[in-house]
Amino acid sequence: MEKALVKSLYRNTEDFIGKEVILSGWLKKIRAQKNFGFIELNDGSFFKGVQVVFDTNLENFEEISKASISSSLIVKGKVVESQGKGQTFEIQATDVEIYQKADLAYPLQNKRHTFEYLREIAHLRPRTNTFNAVFRVRSVLAYAIHKFFQENGFVYVHTPIITGSDCEGAGEMFRVTTLDMNDLPRTDKGEIDTKQDFFGKETNLTVSGQLNVETYCAAFRNVYTFGPTFRAENSNTSRHANEFWMIEPEIAFGDLEANMELGEDMIKFIIKHVMDECPEEIEFFNQFIEKGLIDKLNNVLNNEFGRVTYTEAIEILENCGKKFEFPVKWGIDLQSEHERYLSEEHFKKPVFVTDYPKEIKAFYMKLNEDGKTVRAMDLLAPGIGEIIGGSQREDNLEILEDKIKKEGMDLEDYDFYLDLRKYGSFPHSGYGLGFERMMMYITGMTNIRDVIPFPRTPKNAQY
Amino acid sequence: MEKALVKSLYRNTEDFIGKEVILSGWLKKIRAQKNFGFIELNDGSFFKGVQVVFDTNLENFEEISKASISSSLIVKGKVVESQGKGQTFEIQATDVEIYQKADLAYPLQNKRHTFEYLREIAHLRPRTNTFNAVFRVRSVLAYAIHKFFQENGFVYVHTPIITGSDCEGAGEMFRVTTLDMNDLPRTDKGEIDTKQDFFGKETNLTVSGQLNVETYCAAFRNVYTFGPTFRAENSNTSRHANEFWMIEPEIAFGDLEANMELGEDMIKFIIKHVMDECPEEIEFFNQFIEKGLIDKLNNVLNNEFGRVTYTEAIEILENCGKKFEFPVKWGIDLQSEHERYLSEEHFKKPVFVTDYPKEIKAFYMKLNEDGKTVRAMDLLAPGIGEIIGGSQREDNLEILEDKIKKEGMDLEDYDFYLDLRKYGSFPHSGYGLGFERMMMYITGMTNIRDVIPFPRTPKNAQY
Repeated sequence: MEKALVKSLYRNTEDFIGKEVILSGWLKKIRAQKNFGFIELNDGSFFKGVQVVFDTNLENFEEISKASISSSLIVKGKVVESQGKGQTFEIQATDVEIYQKADLAYPLQNKRHTFEYLREIAHLRPRTNTFNAVFRVRSVLAYAIHKFFQENGFVYVHTPIITGSDCEGAGEMFRVTTLDMNDLPRTDKGEIDTKQDFFGKETNLTVSGQLNVETYCAAFRNVYTFGPTFRAENSNTSRHANEFWMIEPEIAFGDLEANMELGEDMIKFIIKHVMDECPEEIEFFNQFIEKGLIDKLNNVLNNEFGRVTYTEAIEILENCGKKFEFPVKWGIDLQSEHERYLSEEHFKKPVFVTDYPKEIKAFYMKLNEDGKTVRAMDLLAPGIGEIIGGSQREDNLEILEDKIKKEGMDLEDYDFYLDLRKYGSFPHSGYGLGFERMMMYITGMTNIRDVIPFPRTPKNAQY
Repeated sequence: MEKALVKSLYRNTEDFIGKEVILSGWLKKIRAQKNFGFIELNDGSFFKGVQVVFDTNLENFEEISKASISSSLIVKGKVVESQGKGQTFEIQATDVEIYQKADLAYPLQNKRHTFEYLREIAHLRPRTNTFNAVFRVRSVLAYAIHKFFQENGFVYVHTPIITGSDCEGAGEMFRVTTLDMNDLPRTDKGEIDTKQDFFGKETNLTVSGQLNVETYCAAFRNVYTFGPTFRAENSNTSRHANEFWMIEPEIAFGDLEANMELGEDMIKFIIKHVMDECPEEIEFFNQFIEKGLIDKLNNVLNNEFGRVTYTEAIEILENCGKKFEFPVKWGIDLQSEHERYLSEEHFKKPVFVTDYPKEIKAFYMKLNEDGKTVRAMDLLAPGIGEIIGGSQREDNLEILEDKIKKEGMDLEDYDFYLDLRKYGSFPHSGYGLGFERMMMYITGMTNIRDVIPFPRTPKNAQY
């Protein structure tokens, strides 16, 4: 008798019909009558469970009949074609061992629970249908990203999590320290003596690996990071988490056009991969989480993404006859309502907006010849808005130094970054994709807390 | 004329012979004579560079002749069979554009540099042969790990980096805070008021995702983490870094035997994958970094790993006639000299040592029936010692509660962990693999600082 996984039973049913197998897993549902009963057994390998039929031929029939939800079982039995509705095969049990009878206080009895409630028991929620689907897709999506980049010759770079660099800029940071807060060392002037901290200076959690990964781009041509990033923003919204994962590719000798092609190819590849690998989960989301999800994803797969410059986009918005809360004018940062209009109503598909005014974009983006705009790109997608943000990088040493100074930043802090423009500067581009944002897009889940196994948000770092 | 990558030229030379291509990359070496010259161009896609021949037919022959090391070039030319030694093909340039002439202060001129020196310029060192090989292998090894687990049906779980859990135990931790150190909030009693910190309590950087990932094991059966972990140990050795990546698989309904099988399969898979994908790099390490590396790796691939209990291992050591610095006696923690004797001299291959005395292992390891030993396993490998550490987990609620209390820890802190033993407890096992340790084993590099892109060590967090 061979051990089998529920996934194999579903994927290769015919090979198993008539065979005896050993299954192990957890009891999801039970219906017991006088002489026989049905158990839905889930073994974790697959979104669906398998039906186990047991009867009074089993010595411990009474004990089995009283087994509680989530009890762990080891089942021996024969795989047979099922007469019942809802499944094509089932297991006729010849032996059911209750490895451990679950405590009756198990919080996930068979009734509906709110997502809010389930967040309170984040260690148990992956056992529910919704979160089982979410977190299996999370795993498959993460792998799809690696697969895409690795098969295209990209080198994966682990950029540092603890950063001693002053130049990441973007947003509030978490401080990392081993100083004894009850007995802080001080300098003669009474300031905190950060020299005595673990790394000999102030350190923080990274907000982006981009500047680091650019240095590897100069050695490996095409590179990417995929790791956790942190923002100490005190925002309690459904779209903000303080710890999230980000993907940041960077390509050498590639301009903004190549960057957009890469982004389009990547988005299509990872969506297709998840749809191919997780059909049951996607179908579940389509039915219970976001009606029309599959159409939405197919629309992305089957269309060439649009391309429009910021200047053209402003014209479209100004002439569309629609009233926006935030008035449209060249120079403004596009608001969510503008982004959604462009992708949902005008283009009706994902669209890259390029060449933004330099004032509203980061210092490292390449200045266009017009002196007013930079080679930035944002990808806007129907139903979510911005999903990718990137640019061609400024590779001219003088222009870059000038921009750093104008921002009031210290050239010395950027020594290593400027070296790339001294020792064989090269056109290069890259972008950032928020992993959780992509997760929300693919699953239809609307709260970022529900796509992260153990989310970190203000005043909340359980587990 | 089509853009080509150096890697393609090497892997599919015949397809390119006679064709015109556009290459872009960096000048690694140049030899110029009166009427012609040779450039070694590396484009980042491959460990090796390609030879470009240029001559006075090019308008800017003089300029090219004076191009400096690391200058970025865009080369057009014909792929031809090479007459010269050392390469089978070369490029006859029809056009060489110097995109940027590298500053002559470029620190990586063509001479040998010490690893110590190169650590000071971590942003440039991947451009050297050694570090180019190291960090391409790092990328391929990381992918091999994902590939192994994903193809075997494991679910990848992102366990949290910032942890609010008090129960990780192992070793000193880095504190994560947004409190203003110059103006710390205090309680009535004068203590630091951690309630006012960002997450409403004290938080730290994770030292292990194991306890978190066990909760997902109960939902997905076979799971793994692969992420950064942190130890605030003030150890300045060649084997310690404060930030490193760890792989932690966990299998449901799998005992210690299944755990060892998984470990052995994984080690063999990832070594083979790297040897297949990076033959040039492995050959380089074998020649210049660790003589005999390839034999060492083949020895791992071609042997079944040994299995021995701790008690048997102690007997072997007591009876081997060898003098050890640390005397051998049942109950001791095995020292490096003992581990190396076992794997290098006695077994001459990797060996699992199992069933250690409970006193020297963690509280969560499953107690054997003898009441003295636990179902732990360490994998010892020739040339490096311990490379994997794992165990079957205690799944009996009473025994686990008892052990937590005996350790003087607080049961409440382990609520979520104990829930796994209440609601369908199941036999399960797992282990931890230090990613950098595996990197050192596969490359032969002997300092952990040289296998991490931007290493974090005491008093050092550059970039």
